[in-house]
This record gives sequence, structure tokens and C-alpha cells, in this order.
Amino acid sequence: MPTHLFQPSHYFNTIGSHEPVLKIAPGDTVITTTVDARGGDMHEQQATTPGNPMTGPFYVEGAEPGDTLVVVLDRLTPNRPYGWTRKTVAPNVVDPEYVMELPHQPADQLLARWRVDNEAGTVTLTEPADTKLGEFTIPLAPMVGCFGVAPARGQAISTATSAEHGGNMDYRGHTTGVVCYFPVFVPGALFHIGDGHAVQGDGEIVGTGVEISFEVQFTVHLQKGKRIGWPRGENADYIFTAGNARPLDQATQHATTEMLRWLQSDYGLDPIGANILMGQCVEYDLGNIYDPAYTMICKVPKRVLK
Amino acid sequence: MPTHLFQPSHYFNTIGSHEPVLKIAPGDTVITTTVDARGGDMHEQQATTPGNPMTGPFYVEGAEPGDTLVVVLDRLTPNRPYGWTRKTVAPNVVDPEYVMELPHQPADQLLARWRVDNEAGTVTLTEPADTKLGEFTIPLAPMVGCFGVAPARGQAISTATSAEHGGNMDYRGHTTGVVCYFPVFVPGALFHIGDGHAVQGDGEIVGTGVEISFEVQFTVHLQKGKRIGWPRGENADYIFTAGNARPLDQATQHATTEMLRWLQSDYGLDPIGANILMGQCVEYDLGNIYDPAYTMICKVPKRVLK
Amino acid sequence: MPTHLFQPSHYFNTIGSHEPVLKIAPGDTVITTTVDARGGDMHEQQATTPGNPMTGPFYVEGAEPGDTLVVVLDRLTPNRPYGWTRKTVAPNVVDPEYVMELPHQPADQLLARWRVDNEAGTVTLTEPADTKLGEFTIPLAPMVGCFGVAPARGQAISTATSAEHGGNMDYRGHTTGVVCYFPVFVPGALFHIGDGHAVQGDGEIVGTGVEISFEVQFTVHLQKGKRIGWPRGENADYIFTAGNARPLDQATQHATTEMLRWLQSDYGLDPIGANILMGQCVEYDLGNIYDPAYTMICKVPKRVLK
Amino acid sequence: MPTHLFQPSHYFNTIGSHEPVLKIAPGDTVITTTVDARGGDMHEQQATTPGNPMTGPFYVEGAEPGDTLVVVLDRLTPNRPYGWTRKTVAPNVVDPEYVMELPHQPADQLLARWRVDNEAGTVTLTEPADTKLGEFTIPLAPMVGCFGVAPARGQAISTATSAEHGGNMDYRGHTTGVVCYFPVFVPGALFHIGDGHAVQGDGEIVGTGVEISFEVQFTVHLQKGKRIGWPRGENADYIFTAGNARPLDQATQHATTEMLRWLQSDYGLDPIGANILMGQCVEYDLGNIYDPAYTMICKVPKRVLK
Repeated sequence: MPTHLFQPSHYFNTIGSHEPVLKIAPGDTVITTTVDARGGDMHEQQATTPGNPMTGPFYVEGAEPGDTLVVVLDRLTPNRPYGWTRKTVAPNVVDPEYVMELPHQPADQLLARWRVDNEAGTVTLTEPADTKLGEFTIPLAPMVGCFGVAPARGQAISTATSAEHGGNMDYRGHTTGVVCYFPVFVPGALFHIGDGHAVQGDGEIVGTGVEISFEVQFTVHLQKGKRIGWPRGENADYIFTAGNARPLDQATQHATTEMLRWLQSDYGLDPIGANILMGQCVEYDLGNIYDPAYTMICKVPKRVLK
Repeated sequence: MPTHLFQPSHYFNTIGSHEPVLKIAPGDTVITTTVDARGGDMHEQQATTPGNPMTGPFYVEGAEPGDTLVVVLDRLTPNRPYGWTRKTVAPNVVDPEYVMELPHQPADQLLARWRVDNEAGTVTLTEPADTKLGEFTIPLAPMVGCFGVAPARGQAISTATSAEHGGNMDYRGHTTGVVCYFPVFVPGALFHIGDGHAVQGDGEIVGTGVEISFEVQFTVHLQKGKRIGWPRGENADYIFTAGNARPLDQATQHATTEMLRWLQSDYGLDPIGANILMGQCVEYDLGNIYDPAYTMICKVPKRVLK
Repeated sequence: MPTHLFQPSHYFNTIGSHEPVLKIAPGDTVITTTVDARGGDMHEQQATTPGNPMTGPFYVEGAEPGDTLVVVLDRLTPNRPYGWTRKTVAPNVVDPEYVMELPHQPADQLLARWRVDNEAGTVTLTEPADTKLGEFTIPLAPMVGCFGVAPARGQAISTATSAEHGGNMDYRGHTTGVVCYFPVFVPGALFHIGDGHAVQGDGEIVGTGVEISFEVQFTVHLQKGKRIGWPRGENADYIFTAGNARPLDQATQHATTEMLRWLQSDYGLDPIGANILMGQCVEYDLGNIYDPAYTMICKVPKRVLK
Repeated sequence: MPTHLFQPSHYFNTIGSHEPVLKIAPGDTVITTTVDARGGDMHEQQATTPGNPMTGPFYVEGAEPGDTLVVVLDRLTPNRPYGWTRKTVAPNVVDPEYVMELPHQPADQLLARWRVDNEAGTVTLTEPADTKLGEFTIPLAPMVGCFGVAPARGQAISTATSAEHGGNMDYRGHTTGVVCYFPVFVPGALFHIGDGHAVQGDGEIVGTGVEISFEVQFTVHLQKGKRIGWPRGENADYIFTAGNARPLDQATQHATTEMLRWLQSDYGLDPIGANILMGQCVEYDLGNIYDPAYTMICKVPKRVLK
């Protein structure tokens, strides 16, 4: 299968039915780059408008509404040695009365800076240097914050948020090796990708992961005539579904409903069986609780699916 | 330190300032039993009124409002070989439009039955026998659904729900070996415990774990003058806080705020340091999304706390 | 029917199965007094512990679980010429990012003071005197913030919150002349009342109305064997139901469901008819969006009920 | 000022930066028509794709980002004698357990039909004819369900939902005579309008008002350099703000925050004065609790604003 090297020259701040930058076929692999959430490239130069600029869209031949687009995240590699985060927890994730106690930062000092070392596999806080954390180091765990396909009805949805088409889910489980499934709403699917994080906690509660530019390799496949409702995924240990909405309760409802459907359509379970299994084996991950739509992930371990 | 063997003769369906059943001192260990959520004992006899009946309360000498009660869950052992669950996911955890598609069960067939084998360490579905799951077997993982201390202001809070005092948190991380911390609101703290589960999925989305009676061993300690806001806990790998409220967003706010306070009061972090660390290292577990108050758990790995 | 003059000597900060202060019969009228939310009486003396102290409970002879208690609010009269409010909107009713912009008040200057003039029918701001509002005057509109009956299962529920039993609903429609309906959970119903407001905006968004002590007159009736789910009410123009929960979405669900049931059980409507009518004629009032449980009121105009 | 008669030839199912259909100047009046929510015109012919098709967009000369567009709803007249509604309350507005009890309708019988009589000023149920409501008649009260301006960042937002730009707010207060204010995000503002209702209850709880095609007359004005955050409005008795989001709690936060800002910027109130006034005088209307974003309206009576 062909591998396409694609160098983006422009980016989009919405996911929509934009002019495709490349046509690819099911089975094809793409190697490309993404800029960081503010539009900074591998040289930390401002390459485009801030706000999760997307590389793409990629037109997948043969994809039509009602199909499922499969995207394998083959490789996510930070392509510069620096990333940044916000320094304080977002006001919406603490008690309303506690907001006044959050540390107040001047507008020009909202960001922390981190050194990213691909070889050592580490991410290290370098600024501010005066916290009790010192040169705080944690393992590198690259993930995609925002990716998805063009939505239906001619919508162009801001890359700040997410919905059935994917988008800014900011789930740290969207990492190398994961197989992602998206419902196709328009001919060609129109896949967009960007907003790489070198690492991120659950919930993206400071409003960022360690924001960085990426070299990305992904491979697409197509499931003709397979209709799904929400983004799904699969890794070595789990199958999972993503529900994107506010509040978290509704995101959880979407993800849980989608998993109940999946267990019955693809894993041979009857309704009662699917319900019983979910009750005692389900796990949830909090994708993000910061963006306009929150993301809740519903997971079922493959070991209980025989 | 003394170990008390306590055999309950009555139970409470609220957590409140009830007459203590036993006075114990900090450092003491208690071995006792709990009945299941419907009041069924080790012989599956109806021992008391359904609705998470509590063993206790235990009066801890010296405990006063403003202290923290420490409870170590030394051992949680199912004391009968059968448990039960509900068979279908609760209507509030799926899309409202999907509720009509949930399998409808006659009122006398709402429950599934499971064999619990302490030696094999397994829990096995035995009824219904006609699902595609067959004799579905998963690992035994005993946990406490409902426990806590008497609340303030003379309240007697139903064991169906939870709040600052603990209660029906239904978090599967409340398992053997966990150290639990509760704010003390009344003299003697008045610790209650019950509602054992042989295993449970995240969120308790069918409204039950595998409900069973327990033999329980726990040890209490006291932290004089240490004031906390919400239940906290600690296991080998994590410290964690529990936020109990609806919706999940608010439960998450409580748990996150409590963790920010904890990191600053006990782990030597400055405000900005605590915020930065939380942003990239926090994890969340969904305790329950079924009870009147939901429970969200905010966790920080001990490895990042030096 | 007899009228009881009752002078309270003690108060409760929970609504529960407390020792009754008076036994009354269906049809009886009670004239009594209530203290303000902080326990201040008609002389602004501290009469009891702060936190919506309740007068009562009143035991209604013949009331049993499964009945409905009817309470007519005959008269609500402020019995002192001063009330107080908080001065700033609660953090939970503004955007989380805006909380830091709310005016910050020293702990000893949180309250505003109002002059209450029963004859003129006005409420006038007197302190602070230095706002642009000046001596801001609005019409007197007395209402009951917190009232209800003892809950089931031995619960004693804080007067800070509300549930199926009523409680701290803080709905400004609970005013003179309203007929209120409460589900009875315990023998005698055990009616509590307190927390008078001289006036209040929708939502109680500063956390208070104009808090004041009251002379109260009410009359009770009993509907034997009539089972309702949530507090209901009736005035000249509307029938209404109260849903008490967080978030507002859930409070709205409770109130709407209760109204659908009511229209079918008492107003001769078939299911489709009740649904169609609700769709084009329902109105909602926001009771409170401040207390631990919010209150949403679902109203149907009597004119569309023939 | 000129009056433009505009006959639409095509419609949009998103609100976005579409090619304008007409350029108008501040002070101009437009008389045009709108189709109903399913795209039915005055002859009940299918004029376009279902889903709140919009007439427009209208380009307002001189409008630039950071301005406020003023739209006066001069006249809203149903231009056919029939409208339709859904027959059952939406699953998300009742208790999750109650969803199974909602009347279940075959897919081809979901709609009720209403006769709309402009002269009599009435709306009358004609189908189904077999409910206990009979020929149920209520007053005609025409309102606009969906209108607004093109959003920022190149977004094209579905007319199913609403946000800062307006959109599908489904508030029954958007009726003849109301002055509406929208933040301008793109040059020309690009005003869209459609989705007329002959009448609607609070919350649009069946998912529709009485859906109908309209003849519409509106007049635009421009407030240069006036920056607002959310749609605002004004009628004879109130000023009001609209917050659009899920859950209702967040919609309420947006509307309340916007009102606090408005009182301080335009009505001469200091922060404490604005807060005190809001606490005792605010009113809320529930716009819709059905669409992807709910709408809460925050109102302040003009009589308290001197």
C-alpha cells in the first residue's frame, strides 16, 4: 500500500467540508506534520491562526455517508524539544467558591514550558523554575487532542469542541497504536488531525496537555455500510467508545449507549447479556472536562469478550 | 491493640447519630459482619429492612468535630457463596431516546444470580442461564459500597446516597488494604459500614455490584485537629479524594478541589506547583453514576509525589 | 374548626421524625411564628441555631404514609420591620471565569439590610447606603422558603436542602393563598415551617431572599389514600409541581413527570392529550438555583384545564 | 428608510458565512417569508431540506466584529392556516424511569395538526381528534424559533442548536415587538431567520411549537463598537439576556453573567448595586430544554431600572 508524505501549507480551525489537501485510498498510509494548539510549528514559528489548527482534510476514496472510517495511529512523534501548558486548573473543574482561591496569573505568565526528550522518553518542566516541583519529570506519552471527520448538514465545527464526528476530545488514550473508528457523514469522509500533546492528565483540567507539534503517521481503512453513532476505538486491552457533550452525565450516556449497541452488533451478545456484562465489567475514562463538549470514554476489556 | 469481635443484632438504613453499638479506641481493630443491600445475611435470610443496612455505628473514643477518622479496610470477605445483581443498565446512564430499547424485565425477574468462590477468587453468573454469556466468570474483587461517619447538624442521611460524610459511594476502589479518611462531624465519629460487593464495574451502572454479605475487618486511627472536606483514601499506588454530588461535573469539582487542598497541605506543594502537577498527572475514576449522589474519584499517583 | 395559637420554644435544623410540638386535626388552623434563616426572632434576638430553623413539627391526626397533606398558606406576615440579604450573586450562578470578577466582600460585610413596611407594602434597601441603588424600594411579597413533612426511612434532612418531602425550595410562588400538597411518609405527616422571605427574586441567586421572621397562619387538610410523588401547589391561576434536585435538568424532569401524572389522574386527560397540552401550554418557574438541591416549578394554567 | 421585499429562493440549514441574499443598511426594513421547521412553505409544499431552514443571510452594511446588531421583530404573521407539533414530551424532560411510560407512537403518527386563525387569534388542535382535549383552542402567540448571525472562526453551526450567535433558542418571548441584540462576529453580521411557531409552551418540551411558515417583517440597526457576549432582548416590560448551553445550569450562568455586565455597562449600576438588585428582582424564563443547547432567559423588569 502506498505511503504518502504530505507537507501541509495551510490549516483549518474548523472540521468541515473543506477542499481536500490529498486524496488517499483505503489501506494507504500518510506521514505528515501537525502544528501545536496555538499554531506553532516545529521551529516554534507561528505557522497559522491559533485554535487547534488541523492538518488536512484527507479525502478517502470510496467513503460515503453510512460507512465507518478506520484510522490507525501508527506513530505520534513530537518534532521539537519544547512544549507548553497552562499553569492553573480551569475554573469549571473546581468548586465555584474555590475559584477565587486559584492562583491568579498575569496574562503574560499563564504558560509553563516543558522540555520534551524523545530518546529519554521524558517530559520535564523548565519554566516556571521556582515551584516546589523543580525540574519535574514525567514519562512521554504522546496523544492526539483533536481529530475527526467532516460533520453532516454542511456544518463546520470549531476545533475547540467535539461531537459525533470526533473533534477536540482530548483523550489521553488516543495514543500510538490505537485503532480509531469514525462515522462517515460526507463523501470522502474528510479526515482532519492536529493538536498533539506530549503528555496529558485525565480531563485536561488545566485546559492543555503539553502542547507540541508532531510528526504523525496514520493508516486509513474503510468499513463499507457499517454505521456507527460515535467515535470508537480499540487498543491491545480494550474496546472503547467516546461520548462528547456537556455535562459529563450526557457524555457518559452517549458512550454507554454506543457500547451497548456495539456489544450486541459485533460481539454476539444478546441484550440481557450485554447489560449484565457492562454492569460488572465496564470502565470509564474521563477524556476532557474542559472543552465546550466534555468527553467520557466507555471501555470494555477484551479479556471478557472471549 | 485490641481486636473486637462484634456480632450485629440490628442495622440502620440511615447514617446518623444513632446509639453506638460499640465503643472502640484509636488503634483498635473490629471484626464484624455486614448484610447485603436488601438486608440478606450469610444464610440469605432477611435479617433487617432492605436498603443498604449498616452495621454500627462504632463510637471512636476521642474523636471530635474537626478531626479526621482513619479507617483501614483490613479484610473484606464474602461470607456466603451467592450474590445478586440487577440485569439491566439504569435508565439514567443511557441516552433518553434509548431507554425504550432497554430490555424490559418482569418485576420478579429483575435480578441475576452469581456464584462467589473465595478460594478460586472468582464470581460466576448462574442465572439467567440463557444469555450468550453462559457461565460468565470474572475475578473476585470485594469492595465496600456504603460506609462513613455521622453527618453534622443532626442529619440522618439515607444509605441510598452519599455526601461529605461518605455513604453510598459505590466506588470499586474501596477494597482490601485501602486507607480511608473521613471528616469527623460528631463526638465519637460514629462509623457505619455495609453494602458489600463481590465485584462491581465502574459507575455501578446496573444499580448494583454483585451484592453479598461480608465478614469485615477494619482498624481505626484518629488524626486529631486535622480537618478535611471530603472522604479521602490511599492505596499502594495512589492518593485519592471522593466528591459526592449530582451531576458528575459537580462531583468532579468537589474531588478536584479537595485534592488541590491536600497536595498543598500535606505534600509540600505551592499553589502553582500543585496546579501544574494536577494538570498533567491527575487521573479520575467514576465511582458511581447511579445513586442520588454520584461519586467521582480524583487520583494522584504516589510516584509523582516523590 | 379550631384555631391553635402556638408559640414555639424550640426549633429544628432538619426536617425529620422529631417529637411533635402540637397535634392538630384536618381542618384545623394554626397561627404561629417563625424565626429567620439565621435563627433571629421578631426582636432580632438569636432564638436558636442558625440554618433555617423550623417551627414544628405539627402532627396531623389521621395522616398516614400514602396520604396527601394539604396546607393552605392563609397568611404570611413579617413580624419585624427589618430583613437582610446577601450582597453578591452566588459563584455557582455565574460563568466560572466570572467568579473572580464578582465583588469581594469582607466576611463581616456580606449582608445588606432592608426596611420592611407591612402597611406600605414595601421593602427598602437601607444598608449599604453607598450603592447607585440608593434607597431602592420594591413591593413586599412574603413567601415561605422552607417547609415540608418528615421524610421516609428515618431520614432527618437538613433544612438547607429539599427533596420529595419539600424542604428548602425557596420558591417565591409559595406565598399567601397558595394551597400546597405534600406526600405523607410517616404517621402524622409531621409538618415543619420556617425561613420566611419578605421578597425574593427567581432562583434565590444571592443565596437569600429578604430574610425575616414571620407570623404565619395555615390550615391543614388531608386527602386519604391519595399518593403523590413531589410537592404540588395551586393558586388562582395555576396548578404547579415542584421538582427538587441538582442539576436543574433533573429538577425539571421531576416536576414535568409529576405534572404529566397529575393531569392524567385528576384532570381527565388521556396520555396523548396530557402530552399535547403540556407541549404548548406549560410554563416553568425557577424556584432556586442556590441550595444543595435546586427547585424547578412546572405550571399549567387553570384556564386550559376547563 | 427603505423597505425591502425579499422572496427567498433557497435556504440554509446552518448559520454561517454563506453568500448573502441581500445587502441592507442600518435602519432598513425587510419583509420576507420563512418556511417551517421541516421546510414546508405557505402551501405546505416541501420548499427545501428539513431542519429549520433559514431565510437569508442578510448582509448589514457597516457591521463589523465587535459591533452589536439590533433586530426589531416588527411583525410575525403565519401565512398558512395549518401548523403541526409533536405529540409526546421528549424523553430528556421526564424522569429516566418514566420514559418507558410515555405513550409510544408509530413513526408515521408522531405529529398533531393545528388550525391557525390569524383573525380570531387562535390555534386549535384538529388531529388527533380522539383525545380528551377535543378541539383544544389556545391564543395565537407567534414567535421566532431560530435566528441569529454568522458565528466566528468560519464556523457553520447547525440550525438545530444555539450559541453566542443566537440560533435555535426556541424562546417564546421572541415575539412581535421585541428588540433583539446580537454580537457581530463577521463583516456584515449575516443575519438569518426562520423556524416560526404560531405558539409554544415554555421549554419546547415536545420538541416543537406549532410549526408554521411566516411572513416576517424586521428592521435592523447597528451599534458600532458595542461589544456584547450573548443575545440580548428588550420588550415593553423587561430587558433580558439569553444563555445557550447544556445543561440548564450552564445556560443560566451565561445569561446571569451577561445581565450583570449589562446592568453595569448601560444602567449605571456599581457592582454591588447590580448584584443586590439581581438578587431580589431577577426573573428567569425557560426558553428551551429540548435542543442540543438549552436556552435560559434572564430578565430584569424595567420598572426597577428607573
